[in-house]
Amino acid sequence: MKNKKAVNVQLNNDSDKNLTRRDFFKKSLLYSASALGTTSVLSPSLLNANEKEIIEEAPWGTKLGDPVDKNLYGVPSAYEHNNIRRTHDLLSSGDSYASISMCPIHESEGIITPNGLFFTRNHGGTAQVDPNKWRLMIHGKVKKPMVFTLDDLKKYPSESRIYFIECPANGSPGWRGPQFNSLQFMKGMMSSAQWTGVMLKTILEDIGLEKDAVWMLAEGSDNASNPRTIPVEKALDDVMVVWAQNGEALRPEQGYPVRLIVPGWEGNLNTKWLRRLEFSDKPWHSKEETSKYTMLQKSGKAIRYFWVNEVNSVITSPCPEKPWTHLKKGDKVEIEGLAWSGSGTIKHVDISFDGGDNWVEANLKGLVLPKSWTRFSYIMKWEGKPLLLASRATDDVGRTQPTIDQETSKVGVESVYHRNAIVTWEITKKGECNNVQIRKHKKA
Amino acid sequence: MKNKKAVNVQLNNDSDKNLTRRDFFKKSLLYSASALGTTSVLSPSLLNANEKEIIEEAPWGTKLGDPVDKNLYGVPSAYEHNNIRRTHDLLSSGDSYASISMCPIHESEGIITPNGLFFTRNHGGTAQVDPNKWRLMIHGKVKKPMVFTLDDLKKYPSESRIYFIECPANGSPGWRGPQFNSLQFMKGMMSSAQWTGVMLKTILEDIGLEKDAVWMLAEGSDNASNPRTIPVEKALDDVMVVWAQNGEALRPEQGYPVRLIVPGWEGNLNTKWLRRLEFSDKPWHSKEETSKYTMLQKSGKAIRYFWVNEVNSVITSPCPEKPWTHLKKGDKVEIEGLAWSGSGTIKHVDISFDGGDNWVEANLKGLVLPKSWTRFSYIMKWEGKPLLLASRATDDVGRTQPTIDQETSKVGVESVYHRNAIVTWEITKKGECNNVQIRKHKKA
Repeated sequence: MKNKKAVNVQLNNDSDKNLTRRDFFKKSLLYSASALGTTSVLSPSLLNANEKEIIEEAPWGTKLGDPVDKNLYGVPSAYEHNNIRRTHDLLSSGDSYASISMCPIHESEGIITPNGLFFTRNHGGTAQVDPNKWRLMIHGKVKKPMVFTLDDLKKYPSESRIYFIECPANGSPGWRGPQFNSLQFMKGMMSSAQWTGVMLKTILEDIGLEKDAVWMLAEGSDNASNPRTIPVEKALDDVMVVWAQNGEALRPEQGYPVRLIVPGWEGNLNTKWLRRLEFSDKPWHSKEETSKYTMLQKSGKAIRYFWVNEVNSVITSPCPEKPWTHLKKGDKVEIEGLAWSGSGTIKHVDISFDGGDNWVEANLKGLVLPKSWTRFSYIMKWEGKPLLLASRATDDVGRTQPTIDQETSKVGVESVYHRNAIVTWEITKKGECNNVQIRKHKKA
Repeated sequence: MKNKKAVNVQLNNDSDKNLTRRDFFKKSLLYSASALGTTSVLSPSLLNANEKEIIEEAPWGTKLGDPVDKNLYGVPSAYEHNNIRRTHDLLSSGDSYASISMCPIHESEGIITPNGLFFTRNHGGTAQVDPNKWRLMIHGKVKKPMVFTLDDLKKYPSESRIYFIECPANGSPGWRGPQFNSLQFMKGMMSSAQWTGVMLKTILEDIGLEKDAVWMLAEGSDNASNPRTIPVEKALDDVMVVWAQNGEALRPEQGYPVRLIVPGWEGNLNTKWLRRLEFSDKPWHSKEETSKYTMLQKSGKAIRYFWVNEVNSVITSPCPEKPWTHLKKGDKVEIEGLAWSGSGTIKHVDISFDGGDNWVEANLKGLVLPKSWTRFSYIMKWEGKPLLLASRATDDVGRTQPTIDQETSKVGVESVYHRNAIVTWEITKKGECNNVQIRKHKKA
């Protein structure tokens, strides 16, 4: 490609396999100026007149820009002040110590959530830990009980993996609480990141487990400590002890300096400010796994140690925050969404336009990784008619999302956790988008 | 995995294929307390006495933590104040307008650089662009010249891809300038991120190119405008028009609201604050591709339009900022590094302990993606002897890094750009790490 003089352009002969994109927006964008009500600069007939304006008149093009930030660690544009985590009085205590902040997943792109937008859920506020004084103790039924400094941990070979974390209460407003007409408040108790640390298995091979060590307790060093029981089988599978998120040290609200990553399992198990791992032949019965984080059934009994976030999905565009009110009849548009499964890899995602009576298969796009957010896409022409848009994901262990009726028949309506029923958005004639997930599917 | 009562633990029978990890640190960590000179809390014999201290005495475990950040967009821990981008008087003008800030790649993990640490290179400061007034004009030898608003662009189907960006001057201090004894200043003019936007090809299919449109000019809306010529063949291959980086809007210093991504090619081509794409049958001859960003040869002549960042690599641990001074004789340690190629995918990486006389193959770890950072790893036992550590990457188009002598014999020592010669770190008996890249390889 050096010193190329001429390139034979064969636009009609390219080998792009994604045929659905070939004629996307071929006509609609050309005339989009009037449709969007934007300035005349969008009209091709006025292009020459506006060329001067575009090139010369933008104020940021006629003066020097800003110098390098003095703190050398930048922030988003001031115009993006709306793209933030959000709390809600219904979900956080008044003083915001035992709090939830929801990720703006309607603005998320791809499968990485930046650290400044990653959702938070803390039981006793954000601990501010001195990494020089931080220690991790591993003891109980192990051959060599050990206490690690951060430097000790970092001497192990590191791994970097992309995993989502989801609070098991994600989507809980739909069970019995108010219906938020918002994707951020409906499904924003999850995010996704690249995590770097050491496989717990590597540490345990070093320390050695007693033969009857079949349960592990993970405990944080914050005041809430959040003790949770994890089976050793999982600990030896893919659990990580991590110090970095998206290429930098964990943020304080994500457990700085060290947290546990328990891929695909309840967010609550991914212990922040980790201080202790204990091994035993019996499970623990902490408050967090007896009075809370249990799976209430219709019968009134609750399942304990229900860890896996099951297969799930939601359409992120459109959504209540991103309606189709700017589209006009006949416009082509990309429906996009997120699918994820704590059991494995997303196999396929179906989309329905009629609230679940009929389904078509969506395309998976970008990286498709185990226990990671997976993007799906479907390009359609919208004829300006009302729709009931829904997505339904299936993972590689064969699980498929249930309808809300199927889920309710098992679990009742008093539960809080592990909701993975199909979410439905209503698109009105005007292109508005409403959360109507309680609606019964006709054939359910 | 629900309600599991017992798990048959077979540590000696696991199926981990990475045999080099099996006995990693089996002995060294157990006795690391004395070696590291850290507190007695690391001594297994004192574990019981210290258990109380670990669990009860940390100040952050005995009081409530901080509430949710009021601005709902967090910052790194105050303890991480050293992990920042850095400028240098030799590389930036005094007022920092036409500036470089270097990524702390010695602290990077995995293949994602967080947006706050992504390197910057601006020719006229950081433009502060109003996204509502921003426009992109596409004109010249096209069938339908168009001006796009940001909303227009976002109507196209989006793609998210992970690519590195590297300034072609990365590594330039080694040609003729001072020898920085620092990885950050040697190779910190690069970073890697997940980019989200629309494939330029998709837009061009919509707009239509004239048959003799074989060159494209990309121009920014900042005062420097940074015009650069790109062949249409590349524009139709993998070039993206992006609005998001790592899941949020581009930061101002990265070209908010829209920049070009030209995967694997000179960072300078990845036009920030993009305002104009023009098509022609002839290349342009802008200042940025005549007086600058040309490839000076030993003969005194310079190659123009030399775009591709060729295959490259560097060991990131150890490095001058991360020496082995904490290790003792016989300790096992992971050598880690980054490899990348603007031509394709990293195929393999070799490591030398004797300055390039002998080579062994490293493991590639994590995701291995085209035109993306790729991590390599080699676990060794260090016997406390001096080493000359070097890495040498090969990509899937068959290119391998040259020695510094091979490169100099072609290019001379007056060039600034496209240095991809093998980098060598000297490890002393004490474990210090020095940049000795000018050293001649014995067999070169």
